[in-house]
This record gives sequence, C-alpha cells and structure tokens, in this order.
Amino acid sequence: MNVDIGNALGSVASPGISRAALEHLDEQVADAHERIERGMANGEHGYEALNLPERTDPDKIRAAVEPVADCDALVTVGIGGSALGAATIVDALEERGDGTETVFLDNVDPEWVTAHLEALPLEATAINVVSRSGTTAETLANFLVVREAFESAGVDWTERTIVTTGESGPLRDLVDRHDLPSLTVPDGVPGRYAALSAVGLVAAAVCGHDLEAILEGAAAERETLSGSLFDCPAYAYGATAYALDQRGAGTNAMVPYAESLETYAEWFAQLWAESLGKDDLGQTPVRALGVTDQHSQLQLYRAGPRDKLVTFVRPLEAPDREIPATEVDDLSYLGDATLGELLDAEFEATEASLAAASRPNVRIELECVDADEIGSLLYGMEAACVLAGELYGVDTFEQPAVEWAKKATRGLLGGGEFEEANAVTEKTTLRVDH
Amino acid sequence: MNVDIGNALGSVASPGISRAALEHLDEQVADAHERIERGMANGEHGYEALNLPERTDPDKIRAAVEPVADCDALVTVGIGGSALGAATIVDALEERGDGTETVFLDNVDPEWVTAHLEALPLEATAINVVSRSGTTAETLANFLVVREAFESAGVDWTERTIVTTGESGPLRDLVDRHDLPSLTVPDGVPGRYAALSAVGLVAAAVCGHDLEAILEGAAAERETLSGSLFDCPAYAYGATAYALDQRGAGTNAMVPYAESLETYAEWFAQLWAESLGKDDLGQTPVRALGVTDQHSQLQLYRAGPRDKLVTFVRPLEAPDREIPATEVDDLSYLGDATLGELLDAEFEATEASLAAASRPNVRIELECVDADEIGSLLYGMEAACVLAGELYGVDTFEQPAVEWAKKATRGLLGGGEFEEANAVTEKTTLRVDH
Repeated sequence: MNVDIGNALGSVASPGISRAALEHLDEQVADAHERIERGMANGEHGYEALNLPERTDPDKIRAAVEPVADCDALVTVGIGGSALGAATIVDALEERGDGTETVFLDNVDPEWVTAHLEALPLEATAINVVSRSGTTAETLANFLVVREAFESAGVDWTERTIVTTGESGPLRDLVDRHDLPSLTVPDGVPGRYAALSAVGLVAAAVCGHDLEAILEGAAAERETLSGSLFDCPAYAYGATAYALDQRGAGTNAMVPYAESLETYAEWFAQLWAESLGKDDLGQTPVRALGVTDQHSQLQLYRAGPRDKLVTFVRPLEAPDREIPATEVDDLSYLGDATLGELLDAEFEATEASLAAASRPNVRIELECVDADEIGSLLYGMEAACVLAGELYGVDTFEQPAVEWAKKATRGLLGGGEFEEANAVTEKTTLRVDH
Repeated sequence: MNVDIGNALGSVASPGISRAALEHLDEQVADAHERIERGMANGEHGYEALNLPERTDPDKIRAAVEPVADCDALVTVGIGGSALGAATIVDALEERGDGTETVFLDNVDPEWVTAHLEALPLEATAINVVSRSGTTAETLANFLVVREAFESAGVDWTERTIVTTGESGPLRDLVDRHDLPSLTVPDGVPGRYAALSAVGLVAAAVCGHDLEAILEGAAAERETLSGSLFDCPAYAYGATAYALDQRGAGTNAMVPYAESLETYAEWFAQLWAESLGKDDLGQTPVRALGVTDQHSQLQLYRAGPRDKLVTFVRPLEAPDREIPATEVDDLSYLGDATLGELLDAEFEATEASLAAASRPNVRIELECVDADEIGSLLYGMEAACVLAGELYGVDTFEQPAVEWAKKATRGLLGGGEFEEANAVTEKTTLRVDH
C-alpha cells in the first residue's frame, strides 16, 4: 500500500502537522520501531502478530478444510476478532472466489440467527467455529444452535465442521471427542490481529482464495517496516493518525472507495478501538463508505467540529462499466463517462473539498483489490496500529475494559456469582414514556 | 418509543447533566417547541417534515406500485436520503414482509453494480428510482445502467419502473414521456426527513408492509411533542444529546440491540450528521450494533476518551430461540437460557458496564420491531434532531458543505466549468510508497 499524508500537513489542514513536527516525531518512530522489532524477534505477546506472514502454514489450513472444500455455503460462528478478519478477506475477494456463500453469525439476535439457518442449504453447508478460549458465550450459544439445526435436518455436523481454537478448552475437547479437523489460534496473537492466521484464513481457503498470495502481500509490507515514517507507508499512517489525534482529531473516519472494502472498515474499527482505546486515550474510528456517505456524512466532515481525520482507501484499478448515453441534455456528461470514472471523480472531489476546508485527510492507495493487496492492507494497518500504540504508550494488545460486561452477563444468566451482575439491577432511571 | 436518560445524569456519568441544568434546559426546550410548532403550522421548509404522518397518502403510494406488486425483487436507485429511509423500513420489517428481495443501489462501484444486476431476476424485478432534482449524478448514472441492463435482457423497463421525483426535472420529463407511475417528493422536506413520504414508503409498499401502521406510529409520536422534555420522549433524547455534546460528548454512538435495526443506525447517522454538522458544531454519529460491537468498540467506549454518548435502542419483545443444552460443564448455564435472554443480559451488562465507568448512555425502548414502532422511532428521532438543531441554533434543514464536491465532480467529468475542479489538481502530496 502507498500512503499520501500531504493533506494532513499543517500547510493544508487545521489540525495538521508541520513538516518540522513530523521530523521530530520520526525520532520517536525510530525508537518505537526498535521496540517493535525486538518484540517480534522475541515472540512477545502481541508483537508476534507481525510475524504471522512467515509463521502461518497455508498447507495446514487447506488440509483442514479439504473435507468441506466442495460446500456451497460456509457459516462462520465467531465474534469480534474471530469473525472480522475472515469476513474482511472473503468480502473483499468475493467476486474472485469460487462462489461459496458466506455467512457470519457474529450476533445472537434470535430472529436473525433463525432466518440465516432457514435460508442455508444445510446439507451443503460447512461450519467454521472460531473461539480461542472455547467459552465465548455468543459463539458457543450460536454453535449449539447451529449444531442442533443440522441434527434436526438430518445432516451430520461432525462431517462438516472445522474448529479453530486454543490448545485447550471446551472446543478443543469437542475436537478430540468427535475427531474434527481443527486448527490452533496462534499464541501471542490477540483476536483482532489474527486475520493472517487460521482465524482469518479458514473462510478464505473454503472460498478458494489464494492463501499464499495473501501472506505474500503481508510479507512484502513487513519488508517495508523501518526506522523512519518517511520510508514506511504503515508507519507514515500510524504516526500521522497519532499526531493528528494529539492535535485535536480525536475521530478517524475510514472511508474506502470500493464496496468490497466495506467490511475492511469494520475490521479497522475494531483494530483501532480495542488497541488504542484505553487510559482515556485513543482515536475513535468511524466506518463510512464512498461515495454513499458523501450523501450522509460529508456535511459534518467538512463543516462540523475540527476533530476529524478522514482516511480514504482507494484501489487504483478495478473493473469498470460504461454509463449509457442519454437523451437528456443536463445529464449528457454522464454518458461520456464510466461508473469508474464517476467514482474516481467523486473521490478526488471529496478529498479536495475537505482540503479546501482545511480538514485533514490521508489517502491510502492499493494497486487493486486482490489477495496480495488485501494481505498488504491488513498487515500494514496492523503495523500502523502497533506503532500508534507505542507512541500513545498504551497496552496495545490488551482489552481489559470488556471483562466487566462479560462477568455481568454470565452472572445474570446464572453462570456463577459475579458482583458485576448486581450493579445491573441498581440502574438510575429517568424515564420519559410515550 | 420510551426514553430513559437516567445514565446521562451528572450523578452517574461524566460528562453528565445535572437535574438542575436539565430543568434549566427545559425552558429552552419550551421556546424551541414553540418555534417548531409555528414552523409546522406554517409549512415552513424542513418543519414540514414533521407534518408528514398526516400529509402522506398511502392509497396514492399503493396505486403507484400496483403494476409491480407481484414482483420478486425491487431495486431502489437512490442515494443518501433517497435510499436510507426506505432501506431502514424494509430492513427492519424484512421478516414480516412478503419476501420481496430488496436491493439498494446507493453507490456507483462498477463491480458491485454489475454483480447486483447479474444476480437479479430482471424479468421479475421492479425499479424504484428516487431523486428530488432528477439530476443526482450517482442515481442517474445507475438508472441509465439499470435501464440498459433491462433492455439487454429483453425486459421492458417502462412496465416495471416507479419514479419518485420533484415537480420538474429530467426524471419528471421521463415520467411524462413514458407515462410511468410516479410520486412526488413533498415540498419543504429535505431528503433525510423524507422517510415517511413516498421517498421512504414506495419500497415498503412493494414489500407488502402496512403503510397505515407506519404512519399511525409516527402520528402517535407527533402527539407527544410538547413544551417539556420531561413529557416528550423525542425531546428528552434531543435535549440530552445536545446537553452532553455541550459538556464534551462530541460523539454519539447509536447501538441497536437488534439486527433488524442495523440500517436504522445508518439512517440516524445521516440525520444527525447532515442536520447538525455545521458552523464547526454538531455531534458525530457512530453506528454500531449490539452485541457484535461489544467485541469491537466497547473497550474504547468504556476506557477511551470521555467524549461519547452511547445510545442504546432495544425492542422489548422479539421472537426467541432456545439454546440447546450442552454436555460441557463450563457452558451449562447457556443451555438453561434462550438466545433472547443472552441478548438481553448482554445489553443490560453493557449498559451497566458503561455506567459503572461513569460513561453517559441513554436507553431507547421500543415495544417490538413492527410497522407501528418503526414509524414511531423514525418520527421520534426526526423530532429529536429538529429540537437539537434549535438548541444548537444551526440551519438544521440545509447541507451547504456538500455542494463543493458536487461541483468539482461535475467539472472533472466535463459537465461544465467549475473552478472547484481546478483545486483537485493542485493537491499537496507527501507520498510514502511501498
């Protein structure tokens, strides 16, 4: 990926970062890079994620999915980092896959789960269940529901299930009991950094995507990691986002100009929020989509509070389609263009309209949306986030604030004694009823 | 809808609003309500939107869609306010409809448009094209593409197209030329406030939804509008959001706990952003989804910067599904519950976990997700937004900041001379290339 931070400079934008401040920040980047390289070399928790391109074995993943390679549909049961990386890859590459329908059960809404199960051809559907601990309430509840639906339909779920989990736990026990094909969530890699392991690649393998190309794209991005943001696109992005947050841009709107990258923006939102959102710090990610959200969010981005960085992601090449000529005078300019030219013009106009209003923005360019480039994008943004975490000085790879609600949930459902559950009943209310 | 602002009080949250400040704010609400009622009575631009429940004629909409009532699929060609209201309604009510497949072409990504057109059964598909001006570049380009696809497939598009547009313009000319069924975008109603007119209801009518129930739900909410936030759920919400923004909560995360309301959060994001995002003011909407985003954004919401209001939307009743019992000890508590109970426990735990960390949040309750309640929700949030606009003192019903990019786009495509197009070529760059 290439990164252009020109519109984040102080000469263009407010907030913006001056050339001098950027050079100063680059000294911190050099220090942070040393820590990152050391963490990677020592296989430290979290940093190990940046070693995945060389550690992940695509043959092992393909072997595990081989029994279901001919399925028509794949239902992935997982949530958060156990779903978003996989969904990002298969959604990005959907038009290049073998046509396998993919469904991600990443919510426990009963009506929605039922609707999905009723629509799936179960006898030709594979199950991809993903949970490191094997105890994630939403994932295990959904898995129990899915398993029963298969049984009710007379389909042997043990012949159609692939498990990705830790070395031990309820899902690992299940693997042993039923001799299921399984893969292991790599040690030292938090869920949101696991897209380039089995966690993110099982679904891609089932859909027939080129795992080697994804990993090679990531490995090529790893080669760019260096001690200067001026030489490394990932660090240029991470450092710029950090510097702008420091200067007041507490919001980071991620705006891909490709429908295939809509899920990527969701993946980015988790990466950024869970990694950096701690100690009252962290930039708030907002996911948007070009051109759609020009007609929804652009007014705010251009004329609202000066607290936003807008990050554009743009593939340079994509399939195109002619706009047919029209007899209507006022619209004849459209008939001379293609949809792709319209999309490009809208992108450039939107970027320029923000710059003209002194609103900082960054452009990330991909050659196209393919396996190689998606590997590069995912790795690059992970490295950007790890660098930003070093600059903020936060504990990038933990997410302690979500534990409270997990305990309260469990307590409320009678899964043990948790004082957090008591707090739920003490809610302060001020109701205004219809 | 019912609103509970207890967790936004200063006694719970920081930022929060004290009871005393709320009573003081209520005097401003009374003044704002008078202006709103006056605007409605005089049919003033924008305020007229709040009269839609009594002005919209469901019979006229049903008559217009009658020729295509038996279609299997409906493709809506529109963007922003011309798509989001309609999408919100049909997505919310999907499980209650007649099974018509709905597609919204609200982007010009060529690969994505082509994929949709190839997947649709064109001979059984109706077209719903929506643009007030009849010149919106994305909508007209897509309509030209769709029309040609129908022609290429030997399907007469003039027999399958419904147009919703203004009194004049290219789409109105098209209606006259081909004698197409058509509806009129009501005067004085900006797109983002048009869900309860033909703009939002054509798709619902094609899908067999109860238009009267939607409008009755909205009308019932209109009845609650009064001079005090303590008597009016919509104003309670709008005033609280405004007060929290004033106190530092510049971000408003909209988090429905129902998959069927995922699109509603998108609609809300446009409403809030385009209405209030001006003069360097306005709260930034963030769309999220419970429980999914507990595993993505909760860490940030609970432990990141204290700049967020979290708004939960929760239906009190919904279809449910048992979680099958399991042999695994550690998970046996799940087998005693339903998915709905798990969802409820997760909601209550998340709400309490934010309150326990002094993070402000508001709960909006619906009886269920049905036609009546969705009408109530849309109207209520529109009224909340109009009230907030009065409190901010901004021009709620305009969106001047999007004009610049529209002109630049047109100039770039050779649709006339626009100086904005020249600014695009003068971009400042600082590239870091792979």
